[in-house]
Amino acid sequence: MPNILKKAIRDIPDFPKEGVIFKDITPLLSDGELFRRAIDIMYKKFKNKEIDKIAAIESRGFIFGSALAYKLGAGLVPIRKKGKLPYKTINADYDLEYGASSVEIHSDAVNKDERVLMVDDLLATGGTMKAASELVEKLGGEIVGLCFLIDLTFLKGIEKLKKYNIYSLMEF
Amino acid sequence: MPNILKKAIRDIPDFPKEGVIFKDITPLLSDGELFRRAIDIMYKKFKNKEIDKIAAIESRGFIFGSALAYKLGAGLVPIRKKGKLPYKTINADYDLEYGASSVEIHSDAVNKDERVLMVDDLLATGGTMKAASELVEKLGGEIVGLCFLIDLTFLKGIEKLKKYNIYSLMEF
Repeated sequence: MPNILKKAIRDIPDFPKEGVIFKDITPLLSDGELFRRAIDIMYKKFKNKEIDKIAAIESRGFIFGSALAYKLGAGLVPIRKKGKLPYKTINADYDLEYGASSVEIHSDAVNKDERVLMVDDLLATGGTMKAASELVEKLGGEIVGLCFLIDLTFLKGIEKLKKYNIYSLMEF
Repeated sequence: MPNILKKAIRDIPDFPKEGVIFKDITPLLSDGELFRRAIDIMYKKFKNKEIDKIAAIESRGFIFGSALAYKLGAGLVPIRKKGKLPYKTINADYDLEYGASSVEIHSDAVNKDERVLMVDDLLATGGTMKAASELVEKLGGEIVGLCFLIDLTFLKGIEKLKKYNIYSLMEF
């Protein structure tokens, strides 16, 4: 992973609550060259994996999932917070770092045996990604891998996600 | 605008509330070929406009803004609902179709005289886009255009946005 990308991540102390150091990815995003480089690294990792669809988690996951779907020629499946998707959905509850929540997917979003790459910006405790992955599997999708920009390794998210191939561009 | 893209938009009656027909873009997104075609049409429209940054509105705007930023080699600036951005922000309030809300941008997201393309999935009453555009202008950005997948023309959003160049792929 090029160090230049890691340097573009900005620490924000006490966000969203006291004692948490938030990793702000916006300096990386707002630099067109760095953003493109990040997507290209993800693309190279998965271009030969015959990805049919990318399932991206609202809302920062959309940013990486969408550009990657475009580059791979894959479809994009949004996984959203409860009540946001307009059609028939299935949902999964999960605990997250700062409380509890629920994610939803359209029930027609993934077809049986489609090869799906899961994308989010950041792996923290892994709760959101685990719930999202279970939704894709419930619909019959085959999860080819989980792709993150950042892995906060000290939160040990990968322990919840042991059965999957996990790729992250950088670790903190 | 290719009719095939328009056919991929699904009507959802009574969402998010009774009497509203919601335009569901997920069938277009989940088809890799159609999604790529939509982005390519936007790209052709703006590729010679020397776009420095794309300002994309949370959260469906991220989907089109991100892929387009990647293709254009532009930076991506997220415009988000209040309280979501971690760094110093400026915000703007606005009325929207189903209530009132506020959008924020990082105060360092756009530099003076940078050429910015505003992106969202759907133009309804135009309130969100107007507030978002004012934020970019407050930071000194020059708005090259506003780009939407869909214009709900019967809501007359363009009347709020007369000073801008508006492009939409399809109208309903």
